[in-house]
Amino acid sequence: MQNFVLHNQTKIIFGADRISKIGHESRAFGTKALLVYGKGSIEKNGILETVLTSLRDQGMEITLHGGVQSNPLLSHVRLGIDKAKKESIEVIVAVGGGSVIDSAKAISAGTLVDHDVWKFFTGKKSIKKFLPLTCVLTLAAAGSEMNGGMVVTHDEKKLKFGTGNKLLNPAVSILDPTATYTVPATYTAYGAVDAIAHILEFYFTTEDPSTPVQDRFMEGLIINIMESCEKSLNDPHDYQGRADLMWCCTLALNGWTAAGLGLVGFPMHMIEHTLSAHHNIPHGAGLSVVLPAWLSFQAKKNPKKLNQFATRVFQVEKTDSQTDAQKGIKCLKDWFIKIGCPTTLKELKISSKEIPFLAKESLPLASIWRLKNYDAEKIEAILRGCV
Amino acid sequence: MQNFVLHNQTKIIFGADRISKIGHESRAFGTKALLVYGKGSIEKNGILETVLTSLRDQGMEITLHGGVQSNPLLSHVRLGIDKAKKESIEVIVAVGGGSVIDSAKAISAGTLVDHDVWKFFTGKKSIKKFLPLTCVLTLAAAGSEMNGGMVVTHDEKKLKFGTGNKLLNPAVSILDPTATYTVPATYTAYGAVDAIAHILEFYFTTEDPSTPVQDRFMEGLIINIMESCEKSLNDPHDYQGRADLMWCCTLALNGWTAAGLGLVGFPMHMIEHTLSAHHNIPHGAGLSVVLPAWLSFQAKKNPKKLNQFATRVFQVEKTDSQTDAQKGIKCLKDWFIKIGCPTTLKELKISSKEIPFLAKESLPLASIWRLKNYDAEKIEAILRGCV
Repeated sequence: MQNFVLHNQTKIIFGADRISKIGHESRAFGTKALLVYGKGSIEKNGILETVLTSLRDQGMEITLHGGVQSNPLLSHVRLGIDKAKKESIEVIVAVGGGSVIDSAKAISAGTLVDHDVWKFFTGKKSIKKFLPLTCVLTLAAAGSEMNGGMVVTHDEKKLKFGTGNKLLNPAVSILDPTATYTVPATYTAYGAVDAIAHILEFYFTTEDPSTPVQDRFMEGLIINIMESCEKSLNDPHDYQGRADLMWCCTLALNGWTAAGLGLVGFPMHMIEHTLSAHHNIPHGAGLSVVLPAWLSFQAKKNPKKLNQFATRVFQVEKTDSQTDAQKGIKCLKDWFIKIGCPTTLKELKISSKEIPFLAKESLPLASIWRLKNYDAEKIEAILRGCV
Repeated sequence: MQNFVLHNQTKIIFGADRISKIGHESRAFGTKALLVYGKGSIEKNGILETVLTSLRDQGMEITLHGGVQSNPLLSHVRLGIDKAKKESIEVIVAVGGGSVIDSAKAISAGTLVDHDVWKFFTGKKSIKKFLPLTCVLTLAAAGSEMNGGMVVTHDEKKLKFGTGNKLLNPAVSILDPTATYTVPATYTAYGAVDAIAHILEFYFTTEDPSTPVQDRFMEGLIINIMESCEKSLNDPHDYQGRADLMWCCTLALNGWTAAGLGLVGFPMHMIEHTLSAHHNIPHGAGLSVVLPAWLSFQAKKNPKKLNQFATRVFQVEKTDSQTDAQKGIKCLKDWFIKIGCPTTLKELKISSKEIPFLAKESLPLASIWRLKNYDAEKIEAILRGCV
């Protein structure tokens, strides 16, 4: 195990009928709130009304900032920052999934500085000040509700960059599984894939060969994500399935599993970000295509770990051969297909002719994220495994 | 999964050579520190000197409060409170295992009130104010370094009571696995048993039949505690073993596994507290005696869960019969024997004639902890299983 510092201060309020607590929790930070949200879904299912009522009951003044889209855009974040500055906002309230929460974090970091918020993403400036953030989560996927990470896409440059700072951990996140009852099957499945990808990035990129506590925790989460995702797909109103999936997605990226792993990387996310920046595909759909090919690449590098994965998660018979590592990858790929996720670039309508271009476009993020082993040739090779 | 609120604000600094950070971390809360510690071991292994130097380097004034014993005494806590009041202490620094940290918490809660600190333990007063607490952990066992719980024994009344409040969560805990290199084999094993008991109290007393995420997390922890305890016993300087064991013991009782379980109880601890209050035996030794008998009792109540435990932790073949549940209990009991822990009252030099008295003595805590199902008859029956 590697040395680590762990200090996750997000307060989690988990369960049915908890959304109306958002007013009380947000009021602790001020009265002037910027409410960040997405498109119409929370209007339709009544969550927006519940949140507005709860905030108003606490006497809060609300400035609306709706319209966040998936693969959230820098231009929309900048508009939010303008509003927050103009209205002297004291607390940001995010109601949505990862895209909404990430946009809210970028607004939180960008409001208290004079320079453009994009400089945080390119590493030219570091985050030192922030506006407090409270969240109501409506999608089990990104884990942004309990960490300091954020991903935003630069509209013109087609760069989907991520950065983070523990200052941006939400102060409070309300996780109500019933808020995800109306999430369509496709996005339920994409969310599960996203969380599995988060776990596998940690599981396979740690350079510490001995992390038994973290390994068992991560393997248990993957098994539970698969089980709860299937429950949620079979019956979108299965409370237990939705609750388990929601909590697992949070745990996949809240720092608990990563504590002790040392330096880890996000190579799959790096490649997927290029795909979704140029094709605006859902993040989870891009990941389900990249993940099996990247795992095959990792199998060559670390067959022992891949065998452990295959044995413990898919009960593939225990041996140390490459063949069995491949069986584990096949099991995961088959499961992606079973839950309706794409596993080829073709399904995403991305031509194999684009591969050299996409590999090259991934390089700036590879550099910023210090993925030293990933040059254009290697990224091309992985993408060719996705055809 | 049940609704829950999770907000654990303890900052964990984990790894070798981190103890010298205690001065910097403590200075954030003031300059006047009460240093709480145990007997001579931290003088011998140099940890006390490292802590004192680090605190003095930050210009802190230190009042010493050594001599905490295992099964820490109320009288010694009261002396600490007197010192803290007299010296206008601003921060409490605990260096030791669970007994030391629990004493420090009691001093933290007791210093800012006029009434006797014992009233917190009997439930007559509730904790509303506290002095900030920083810790250097030297024993993998109790988990007190990342929770708000504390256990203290009333000297005259022979009552070993526990209570807690999230305000008493240490602000910072430094976990250096090398600090446990000199822990004797017996106490290394007792610590492992204590952590396993914490997990099994949650695992079996939850009334929610469907907690798959928490179950896998807990099962993984038990497997890792057993593996890392054996490593540590085979080679007391095995860093990896000591590190895994230390982190598992923290995770066993920091609220992460319990989130979503709903109401849980501590019946094994209730019974063990009576044994150690009257016989001053090590807590882990008392638990290794009570645990198998209590599990047999639970097997009748919830055979399905005990089979899951037997199957997943000990790879006992999957069936739903009582026989296989018993196999799981036998595996755990055999492991206790393997690591040198007692499994009978006789080994603790407690006569079976005392059983009715000990059962009766357990009742006040059963009442305070709201263990409604545990009357004298039931406790007697469990204790008769320990003969």
